[in-house]
Amino acid sequence: MDDFSQTISHLKLRVDQELMIATPQIKPQSLYEPIHYFLSIGGKRLRPILMLLAARLTGGKTEDALDAAVAIELLHNFTLVHDDIMDHDHLRRGHATVHTRWDESVAILAGDGLIGLAYRQLLKLPSQRLVTVCRLFTEGVIEVCEGQAFDKEFEVRDDVTLQEYFLMIGKKTGRLITMSTQIGAILGGGDDKEVEILREYGEAIGIAFQIQDDLLDIVEPEEVIGKTFGSDVAAGKKTYLMIKSLELAPAEYRERIRDILRASQVSPEMLLEMQHIFRVTSILDQAAHEIEEAYSRANRVLDRFPRAEATQELRQFTDMLLNRRY
Amino acid sequence: MDDFSQTISHLKLRVDQELMIATPQIKPQSLYEPIHYFLSIGGKRLRPILMLLAARLTGGKTEDALDAAVAIELLHNFTLVHDDIMDHDHLRRGHATVHTRWDESVAILAGDGLIGLAYRQLLKLPSQRLVTVCRLFTEGVIEVCEGQAFDKEFEVRDDVTLQEYFLMIGKKTGRLITMSTQIGAILGGGDDKEVEILREYGEAIGIAFQIQDDLLDIVEPEEVIGKTFGSDVAAGKKTYLMIKSLELAPAEYRERIRDILRASQVSPEMLLEMQHIFRVTSILDQAAHEIEEAYSRANRVLDRFPRAEATQELRQFTDMLLNRRY
Repeated sequence: MDDFSQTISHLKLRVDQELMIATPQIKPQSLYEPIHYFLSIGGKRLRPILMLLAARLTGGKTEDALDAAVAIELLHNFTLVHDDIMDHDHLRRGHATVHTRWDESVAILAGDGLIGLAYRQLLKLPSQRLVTVCRLFTEGVIEVCEGQAFDKEFEVRDDVTLQEYFLMIGKKTGRLITMSTQIGAILGGGDDKEVEILREYGEAIGIAFQIQDDLLDIVEPEEVIGKTFGSDVAAGKKTYLMIKSLELAPAEYRERIRDILRASQVSPEMLLEMQHIFRVTSILDQAAHEIEEAYSRANRVLDRFPRAEATQELRQFTDMLLNRRY
Repeated sequence: MDDFSQTISHLKLRVDQELMIATPQIKPQSLYEPIHYFLSIGGKRLRPILMLLAARLTGGKTEDALDAAVAIELLHNFTLVHDDIMDHDHLRRGHATVHTRWDESVAILAGDGLIGLAYRQLLKLPSQRLVTVCRLFTEGVIEVCEGQAFDKEFEVRDDVTLQEYFLMIGKKTGRLITMSTQIGAILGGGDDKEVEILREYGEAIGIAFQIQDDLLDIVEPEEVIGKTFGSDVAAGKKTYLMIKSLELAPAEYRERIRDILRASQVSPEMLLEMQHIFRVTSILDQAAHEIEEAYSRANRVLDRFPRAEATQELRQFTDMLLNRRY
């Protein structure tokens, strides 16, 4: 394993250890067991790792940002548990979602509990910047809800523009990522300029990351992504691919896409047909290009960092994301 | 209107004004409209009023605790919106619940958004005690989830003890009330002893308040309480009345109660039958006695307050609660 892979493994291990401590298996069982379960079935821990890398880059130690890193992962898991209910998704990280394994009430409460646990963890920080960090965190909570609301609203519309899409993913996906880099930089001791550069870096990788998710949903098999194949298409989600194809695909394809979007039940054959349409109209290629472009932009943002040579770890993080398959 | 009623009206008005400002009707509409709706259909605002009275008692001004008071009401409304989904309640404050008027996804998200808005409001406080207050608030969020989880677990059990009941309501109902008095006292400038006395006061009225809710559910008509008549019995809730009657009612009644609890559908006739059983076995009287006793205990706690004569407002608050019918 190279140095960077070792660093990532080490940080992930620290986060996972703290996550287990933060989510004890105590009573009431119907609250803590599903929370513990959901955190035990895996997860890449990208947001906390990113936060810790940002803290290191700005001169801090892992311990300076560890509580906040764990908090952001708890918050991220809250969004997953609740989104899975709303999106009727039954598979996550290759395992049953909380509402599928238990029921909706349990999943609602598990998500709520995760928010509380996230704030508890955050409030362990001794930092003098705690109030600033709490405010950033809270604005993130609100924006994530806004993003999810837009995402749900877009499901029943077929005139969503790319501009609206970028607004939506900036809130739903991007905000937790920019929050990770910002809070990491603040807790690492970065100055305003460094915090802003890292925010912009987070913004760029957030966009790339979400378009990648959109792409993976329809190109990678279930065993690889650990989620239901084509669930975005089935739910009528206005992904990057969907918006682009509604805008650019030849008329006969556009009609067919609208038919599929309007179908009360989307069959596996329809999903493969959508994949085919995305492929032959070069939408998959365009998405791949957009992803690469956003990751490159992220690295270019890092060129502006005062000690550019110190950004090596984050550039490797960018590469790691670029090459992810799930 | 007497002085106290005027004070309450005035405080309620201030809270309502701030609640409207805290929940703007902006986009995404599917997030903010239901939040605004739910806060517009009424509500007694007892927790924020109690917090403001606690702040006044400890030497503070209304403005010192107003943001926290609004935050606690937002948090309380989050619990109502999510509990209504879990409990399948369709009526609240005489109006349709959020998941009934919209759908479950909208209600899940509205509740989540309310948590975020609650923290945003709390974090407006300029107080130096902000981190202390945030930690108390967060422990409250977690305990409220724990209380709701116990409440749901108890629905499918018929051997719940009174001790378990008091543990559950202490978390589900009591915690937001003790939080209100504690945070009010902290922000008003109270010392540790005063904060603790007000916590104990909150604890006593929390118990009385919940047993009252249990009682109102089965004795007051829907038009009065604004909630579905007998919804606790229909849901198999282990209320004070239910636990007492399973413990103390003559054997033939106990058998009948278990039948009703096991019924897949509880009819209006069954609800009236339960009311009848509660009445003839003196369970209603016992509940009324327990309520009065807890409110008296609350007032006795106030006797220990350093400036006992200043506690007049809170004693009037106790009386107001004692006489409530909804």
